[in-house]
Amino acid sequence: MSTGPGDPAEPRMRRSPEFDLIAAIRERMAATVAGSPRAASISVGIGDDAAVSEPGGVTATTIDGLVDGVHFRSSWCPPRSVGRKALGAAVSDLAAMGAAPGEAYVWLGAPPELGTEPILELCDGLANLAEKIGIAVLGGDLTTAPALSVSVTAVGHGAAASDLVGRRGAIDGHALCVTGELGGAAAGLMLLEHPDLRERVPERTAAAAISRQLDPRPRLEAGRALAAAGAAAMIDVSDGLGADAEHLAAASGLGAEIDLERVPLGAGVAEVAEAAGRDALDLVASGGEDYELLCAIPRSALDRCALAVERTGTRLTEIGRFGDVGGSVRLRLPGGRSLPASGHDHLRAR
Amino acid sequence: MSTGPGDPAEPRMRRSPEFDLIAAIRERMAATVAGSPRAASISVGIGDDAAVSEPGGVTATTIDGLVDGVHFRSSWCPPRSVGRKALGAAVSDLAAMGAAPGEAYVWLGAPPELGTEPILELCDGLANLAEKIGIAVLGGDLTTAPALSVSVTAVGHGAAASDLVGRRGAIDGHALCVTGELGGAAAGLMLLEHPDLRERVPERTAAAAISRQLDPRPRLEAGRALAAAGAAAMIDVSDGLGADAEHLAAASGLGAEIDLERVPLGAGVAEVAEAAGRDALDLVASGGEDYELLCAIPRSALDRCALAVERTGTRLTEIGRFGDVGGSVRLRLPGGRSLPASGHDHLRAR
Repeated sequence: MSTGPGDPAEPRMRRSPEFDLIAAIRERMAATVAGSPRAASISVGIGDDAAVSEPGGVTATTIDGLVDGVHFRSSWCPPRSVGRKALGAAVSDLAAMGAAPGEAYVWLGAPPELGTEPILELCDGLANLAEKIGIAVLGGDLTTAPALSVSVTAVGHGAAASDLVGRRGAIDGHALCVTGELGGAAAGLMLLEHPDLRERVPERTAAAAISRQLDPRPRLEAGRALAAAGAAAMIDVSDGLGADAEHLAAASGLGAEIDLERVPLGAGVAEVAEAAGRDALDLVASGGEDYELLCAIPRSALDRCALAVERTGTRLTEIGRFGDVGGSVRLRLPGGRSLPASGHDHLRAR
Repeated sequence: MSTGPGDPAEPRMRRSPEFDLIAAIRERMAATVAGSPRAASISVGIGDDAAVSEPGGVTATTIDGLVDGVHFRSSWCPPRSVGRKALGAAVSDLAAMGAAPGEAYVWLGAPPELGTEPILELCDGLANLAEKIGIAVLGGDLTTAPALSVSVTAVGHGAAASDLVGRRGAIDGHALCVTGELGGAAAGLMLLEHPDLRERVPERTAAAAISRQLDPRPRLEAGRALAAAGAAAMIDVSDGLGADAEHLAAASGLGAEIDLERVPLGAGVAEVAEAAGRDALDLVASGGEDYELLCAIPRSALDRCALAVERTGTRLTEIGRFGDVGGSVRLRLPGGRSLPASGHDHLRAR
């Protein structure tokens, strides 16, 4: 009854992942469960038809993915970073809800010629970030694909739906605030895609920006702090400040004004922009993947929110306000000029 | 500040899906929420950073995916079927736990040249199956990829972990049973990949087998019925009877014997096999994607389980037994021969 490949009875066209590879991946992911704050709620992990856990309260669930050549290039993004970026991007959506970290499920497509080592490195990067932030990886699927592709479903938790902060909830007059600094991931991307630029900036500057691109850190603690301290609406800056501010304002049927000069610049952004002959504010306005949080905060809660964010090791900066300012988001530039966010080429990207 | 594509500041390399496409997809998926048995537990659906629901009890979560050229070929698998197959494969894992249908999250990668119509058709197929089986699609991500790729994370529910049936739990002497019929999806695949074969079987026969391949129906009701009636361990037949029986037996540290002649043949399997000059039992043993349930049942619960499965509109057949029969699964053929499942070429596929 034995038949060769390509035989019409061949029921699946999947590549056979070697058993050792699957076993090695399982081992790495099991470590994320053992260290998870929710370990006690998990009764079945990787290796069954489905993982079983007892969520309690409410869950926030999101799915996000990366494809080689679309969201990164394997020429400059090592497999470990692909793993970190894939998990980081998904978990950042949980941070933007103010949810506590929970579980993740990973679908991985890899070209057969890639070999097993990069797959393991990718899983290492993903598992390391998972352990660091308290995410238990409970399931996965490994298959052949023409380009390295990772999709991650991340689940976060809250006691009640009212504890979580959605995109909607801003009202006219709310402050528009951002955590941390922006532009670093975009500056890092420029350095990675144009190695000649790297010679024109100090080594430490380049390293800081590149790390921001390759090693995203979702703001889980800041997100929870903001939710508890009274943020009214929240989104993560994944597509770029202009685009994400538009999403946030539109969810509440509002516009917003952002003073670009008030946005804190990420490490190395000014230097990289100068070396490239570009405007640093362009990187700030249009550069995505910083995974900071953008939120609407009632004026009465501003001080409380700023303090709560500082306690998580970063800062909160007021960079604009929500209002009925022509129904869209305007980016104010130095010298009084302003641009509609949606008129900006980059800001159309998503 | 405007820059062209390929500029180093281009922060994301994603394709911009047209707003209309996203809106059309959301509309289709919203219909799955409205009709879901768990609609009342869902407070935030598609359109925010994450979906929010109140699970209660325990959740069973699984992730599965399909890639064009690996799990199907777009030359014979229309987009609607890609959507149905992607959801069906994931939900089948929930059926194999005995879980009640819950939510799904869909990651979709599509080549830019595909255009929007096939994407909408894929979403239609997925949403139609979701509505039929009571799955609410609560989140998604659409991006560019070199081949049409779909990953689906499916969440099912149970009152307590003890209500769900994992792969482990078989003991020596348990009956090995299967729901429904096997081989149909493999026969359908043969007809789809070799159109000349189609002329050699009756039209209705071909249609039945092809439908089995293109329109999988996860056995959610049978799975819940089996869990309630005392099945001790369960898996779905996605890789093939031999391979999945090995997974099931190995999870309990056992072997098993399967009498291939007792396995009910799917509609058209005998005719297609004959037309192709093949052994129908080969399709039964190695053909995957039938998405029937394979389970271990204590002898005392056999009648109860059979009756419970019949009430869901299909049948349960005892096809073998678990035991310490050399530590692996053996497939008994007519005439007293037997094959180790793991020695079968197809059964190595996964």
